[in-house]
Amino acid sequence: MAQLVTGNMAVKGTKFLWKCLPVHVEKADRSQLRVKWKTEEGKTCDDVFDTVLFAVGRQAQTSRLNLDKVGVKTHPDSHKVLATNEQSSVSHIYAIGDVLQGKPELTPVAIKAGKLLARRLFENSKKQMDYENVATTVFTPLEYASVGLSEEKAVEKHGIQNLEIYHAFYKPLQYTLAERDASQCYLKAVCLREHPQKVIGLHMTGPHAGEVMQGFSAALKCGLNIELLEQTVGIHPTVAEEVVKLNISKRSGEDPTVTGC
Amino acid sequence: MAQLVTGNMAVKGTKFLWKCLPVHVEKADRSQLRVKWKTEEGKTCDDVFDTVLFAVGRQAQTSRLNLDKVGVKTHPDSHKVLATNEQSSVSHIYAIGDVLQGKPELTPVAIKAGKLLARRLFENSKKQMDYENVATTVFTPLEYASVGLSEEKAVEKHGIQNLEIYHAFYKPLQYTLAERDASQCYLKAVCLREHPQKVIGLHMTGPHAGEVMQGFSAALKCGLNIELLEQTVGIHPTVAEEVVKLNISKRSGEDPTVTGC
Repeated sequence: MAQLVTGNMAVKGTKFLWKCLPVHVEKADRSQLRVKWKTEEGKTCDDVFDTVLFAVGRQAQTSRLNLDKVGVKTHPDSHKVLATNEQSSVSHIYAIGDVLQGKPELTPVAIKAGKLLARRLFENSKKQMDYENVATTVFTPLEYASVGLSEEKAVEKHGIQNLEIYHAFYKPLQYTLAERDASQCYLKAVCLREHPQKVIGLHMTGPHAGEVMQGFSAALKCGLNIELLEQTVGIHPTVAEEVVKLNISKRSGEDPTVTGC
Repeated sequence: MAQLVTGNMAVKGTKFLWKCLPVHVEKADRSQLRVKWKTEEGKTCDDVFDTVLFAVGRQAQTSRLNLDKVGVKTHPDSHKVLATNEQSSVSHIYAIGDVLQGKPELTPVAIKAGKLLARRLFENSKKQMDYENVATTVFTPLEYASVGLSEEKAVEKHGIQNLEIYHAFYKPLQYTLAERDASQCYLKAVCLREHPQKVIGLHMTGPHAGEVMQGFSAALKCGLNIELLEQTVGIHPTVAEEVVKLNISKRSGEDPTVTGC
């Protein structure tokens, strides 16, 4: 899925230098920046750029909180809080959101976990946060949205012999009209092989992927399987209807290119 | 929902003449057309227009088929074929699609019904077409998409005392950025009142409503209820996340306007 997104960017003119480690940045002429980097093979290269952006992720700023003074345990590498059901190793100290070890770094996840925690603490609720099947979207020029397990994770967990993967290269109607290349528009449903083939992962690149994925993430919460997906009637013309039209499995070896209207 | 769509068109400059019956069209000067119409009160009015478009629906062309000669029964008014599970009153004559009495006039419905019928006839399948919970979208400037029962139909079927209706006036992020008026962007979930509040109808006006609705229509097929909807984590920022954030019921009388991020 990632390769489809970057492949789409490459087609549109983005040059990628893969597996390179920047080692030095300095001012060059005309407000530009000279960057030196090492390639995977150990070769040193350099070039000038207009802009340098560091996208190196976030770090949990727990060290300033002196958590060790009260006994709240953190992960030795990430410094994130170790917690079960948002409860830290000190029973009356809770943590939600990106500061939690092993949980998705997403705002709606933090909001939901916080709401549920507040209800458990002050409203006698028993409901725990469900971190499974949290849908997310990467808002790249070609959107990528997914929910549930990746194909790789599913294979690791269930074994390829117990999975059925349905997929499709589809052409959004708006691409057809504009005669745009749609070769990176792809859909994949990762399912258990056993009848009725429960859907455990859904992946999509294409226009409005985020809008499409939200409802299907609700369907996964409700136990979506291929039989129910197939019974769902498509809305024509949408991109989303391609999901309910999925019918070619990887195992079949058939061409997954969607043809016709 | 219909009033929101037409209200949005009216704001953008479309003039509606409601409950008027056109009675006469004739050529006027400068390639225009003079139309006369009667109002509800019986008054006759007229004006000139550049274009006259008749949107009067379709009619089933069954009369040319001489169906009565072989005994296939049709509806006396619509002339559509009366059938159960696509089987007409003559057991070896089947009908699918818009020609069927009382079925939605939608291409994907006809395609699906045809596939299922073919499998029953030639593949020993027992699977019948499910005409319930067929999602559809009206591609008006402000899209309207829905699945399941309208509020009116649900009240008729279950009684208002057995229903809980959740709703929201929301502002799509793209409207916020463009400072566009979002007062017609609205969401409504029609649910059974009994725990866990099964969703029996979902309605939405707003950008990409069709893309949003498809996945939720799959969720309805899987038995979506308010508890599972609430457990679904939103994808931020999308329009679709407003569906999983629904939490104000009509019965509560609270302001359904979504505030904040």
